[in-house]
Amino acid sequence: MLPLNLHHTAVAVRDLDESLRSLAALFGVEPLSREVIADQGVEEAMVPFGGSYLQLLMPLGADTPVGRFLDRRGEGLHHVAVQVADIDAALAHLVGTGAELVDREPRRGGGGHRIAFIHPRALAGTLIELVEVR
Amino acid sequence: MLPLNLHHTAVAVRDLDESLRSLAALFGVEPLSREVIADQGVEEAMVPFGGSYLQLLMPLGADTPVGRFLDRRGEGLHHVAVQVADIDAALAHLVGTGAELVDREPRRGGGGHRIAFIHPRALAGTLIELVEVR
Repeated sequence: MLPLNLHHTAVAVRDLDESLRSLAALFGVEPLSREVIADQGVEEAMVPFGGSYLQLLMPLGADTPVGRFLDRRGEGLHHVAVQVADIDAALAHLVGTGAELVDREPRRGGGGHRIAFIHPRALAGTLIELVEVR
Repeated sequence: MLPLNLHHTAVAVRDLDESLRSLAALFGVEPLSREVIADQGVEEAMVPFGGSYLQLLMPLGADTPVGRFLDRRGEGLHHVAVQVADIDAALAHLVGTGAELVDREPRRGGGGHRIAFIHPRALAGTLIELVEVR
């Protein structure tokens, strides 16, 4: 598998508007997109930083994966996303290595991209998303 | 201030060799550099992913910033680094906005780059490093 890029790094936040205002004040950056992804229970904003993005994730409720993350860990870094050319090939490779996966089949993420998550146990407690940009 | 890129995303790990083996197995990637940075109390490896890096940070001892992070939070995502063209101008801008800084003056980081940290209170509990690549 050839990783093409770090597509984004994601931050779990309690207040998306407030965090977007903080990013605008700190760096003069604005979101390229903002989207509710109902089946993941989040509203997300993608903020470009050169060839990568900072993604802000706000849960739609307490009983969602990101809502539970905020309860347990507080606000802060949530996952990192690796862009791959072919997510089916990447998942087949990972299954072959015995890596622990959250998703064995790709699903649709923000922007309509195909995504899948690798379990944090595969790398030092770090949740890694695979992204095949459509 | 113009952010040029997400230069790297950093992961705090207990065993650098083991995490490098995990990354090699998962993605077929190898570190471009590996360096002890004594005054930060870490050994770090930079692993390229396209136009950005995953940085692995292993503390040199328990009584170091990353050692205390591991005690408190366990292994996982530690900070994200924003590349800027001129770190002195970036810090002057940030002081002007009233942002809370860890470093008001740049210091030398890995690779000889000039770096400075913004306090996690400035963005949703997220430690942000500024990097001026030399």
